[in-house]
Amino acid sequence: MAPTESSSEQGRRKQALALALAAHDASGRVTRIRIPRRDTGDDDVAIQILYCGICHSDLHTIKNDWRNAMYPVVPGHEIAGLVTEVGKNVSKFKVGDRVGVGCMVNTCQSCESCKDGLENYCSQIVFTYNSRDGDGAVTYGGYSDAVVVNERFVVRFPDGMPLDGGAPLLCAGISVYAPMKHHGLNAPGKSVGIVGLGGLGHVAVKFAKAFGMRVTVISTSPEKKEEAVEKLGADAFVVSSDADQMKHVHAPVSWAPQAQGKMILLGLPAKPVEISAFALVGGGKTLAGSCMGSIKDTQEMIDFAAKHGVTADIELVGAEDVDWAMERLAKGEVRYRFVIDVGNTLIAA
Amino acid sequence: MAPTESSSEQGRRKQALALALAAHDASGRVTRIRIPRRDTGDDDVAIQILYCGICHSDLHTIKNDWRNAMYPVVPGHEIAGLVTEVGKNVSKFKVGDRVGVGCMVNTCQSCESCKDGLENYCSQIVFTYNSRDGDGAVTYGGYSDAVVVNERFVVRFPDGMPLDGGAPLLCAGISVYAPMKHHGLNAPGKSVGIVGLGGLGHVAVKFAKAFGMRVTVISTSPEKKEEAVEKLGADAFVVSSDADQMKHVHAPVSWAPQAQGKMILLGLPAKPVEISAFALVGGGKTLAGSCMGSIKDTQEMIDFAAKHGVTADIELVGAEDVDWAMERLAKGEVRYRFVIDVGNTLIAA
Repeated sequence: MAPTESSSEQGRRKQALALALAAHDASGRVTRIRIPRRDTGDDDVAIQILYCGICHSDLHTIKNDWRNAMYPVVPGHEIAGLVTEVGKNVSKFKVGDRVGVGCMVNTCQSCESCKDGLENYCSQIVFTYNSRDGDGAVTYGGYSDAVVVNERFVVRFPDGMPLDGGAPLLCAGISVYAPMKHHGLNAPGKSVGIVGLGGLGHVAVKFAKAFGMRVTVISTSPEKKEEAVEKLGADAFVVSSDADQMKHVHAPVSWAPQAQGKMILLGLPAKPVEISAFALVGGGKTLAGSCMGSIKDTQEMIDFAAKHGVTADIELVGAEDVDWAMERLAKGEVRYRFVIDVGNTLIAA
Repeated sequence: MAPTESSSEQGRRKQALALALAAHDASGRVTRIRIPRRDTGDDDVAIQILYCGICHSDLHTIKNDWRNAMYPVVPGHEIAGLVTEVGKNVSKFKVGDRVGVGCMVNTCQSCESCKDGLENYCSQIVFTYNSRDGDGAVTYGGYSDAVVVNERFVVRFPDGMPLDGGAPLLCAGISVYAPMKHHGLNAPGKSVGIVGLGGLGHVAVKFAKAFGMRVTVISTSPEKKEEAVEKLGADAFVVSSDADQMKHVHAPVSWAPQAQGKMILLGLPAKPVEISAFALVGGGKTLAGSCMGSIKDTQEMIDFAAKHGVTADIELVGAEDVDWAMERLAKGEVRYRFVIDVGNTLIAA
């Protein structure tokens, strides 16, 4: 890393081969490797990664569940750390700043989505890992000690927002904050049901309470009731069967007790969703999808989170425990997000 | 009718048996009958009906397509006329006012929908015809020379809004205006596609243009292109096959070129709609339903329409021509709304 301009040459050499955890096949296991990182360009921010959340997408990708893995895969898109170097055009950040990087590291900047400030829907989006950047190189994610990212895709951690508990907000947080905002669900007195109390769900409960909403958690796990209500502050808890909830999306839509109720899908069931037009039209209801959020919304989200004390409930794991953490994640045994202590454990032997 | 207080006794006697057109079976034909109308209650407005639009719902109902006909059925929920008498508590209207009545004549006023100003989604809603009111009586619609309605469900026709071309706004107009408003589609510079250029669609084009939007008409009828563009002011016209458009709603959703595109269903296909979660989530898209609109929105809609010169394109028919009009409506041969000239043609022999 290059904490000062005078040592930038050394920094570049180190960044040229960063330390990382990579999957080499679909086994679900990762091993240490050295990966190339580009030199800090004029618009780039070089970041020493201190923490990286483990998202379920990471597991899907390394196991090649989506048939798109480009091994070696270095996962991780909930990245938090410190700025070690900035390019000459960078105005938003300086060395030493506490920053984060989420799911994307580049977009085309010219399509309708980009121009509308919805660059997370850009068809040319470059994801933080397992994606091809403009130069054809495969991107490597945050299970690594360093990364170089265009400043447009770097978010500032506000004062009071911890790097470890804040890291998961960069994917889990924005994924629930953005649709709540864009569908007007972020208003005091409104009611919201959170289907599924996992990495995203538990943060959704916290944001919804911070917005002043009445929150009902809808979960397949009765044992989560106490946590949902006592710890996370949910107002109510409903147990649903998996069949009801995941296979027949029209059922939850019908549940929405009020006219003009909205249901936002964040997950991707493989089969098409069947929904009765009567259920939608009769109550003026909405079924919508949402995927991540823009950088502007991400900065807004983390500023709001800092102001309202919203962080993820995390379990910190060392770099050597990632395989074990992935196994527990697959079983749904994490409450609610694993975060890799990169800074203290992903270090050269 | 009772144009003045002094002749109200005579008015009540006349209203006690109003003249109407009723269907007595599923043949699709109507005949003249006398129907009871209640005395003008303290909160009621008595209306001399001058015009009533013919909505496709009227045809569905008299043919018992929805298996809910309570014969004799007097259809009509696009009612325009003059106030002939008001109850002692009525403050919004006076004798002689130009007014309209749309799809509903009563709601519970106590449910969440009613309290939220979304009384069109009240589960106890009483429709203007073929519905049971609080006293158990079946409601009779606007194919009649008179009606008595609680003032809460009466809308004022603004200056400059004709009673004949304005009548269809009370169903067709509000049905397209309300979802455009509630989904934020009523903004200059936004793009909207109108699927189907009929009674609702042609008014939707006019409202969208009045909002300053770019409008594409998506129709199965290539011959409507010239009208859509030249006459209604649409910016573009796309021909779609019926199969693409009506049976596979996911197709139009996928068409939405922009992130966070919204598709609003107003029709009621009998089979469940199949939709890919990827299509919704990937682009942050919305599929929603909408049904009518609140009275507040209806008044706002007709005021907006008057200001911007929006009326329905109508074909005026006499009471004796309703059967013929229904046949042409069934064939889609109306451009774009039949309106019955009740005042001049539904008169005692």
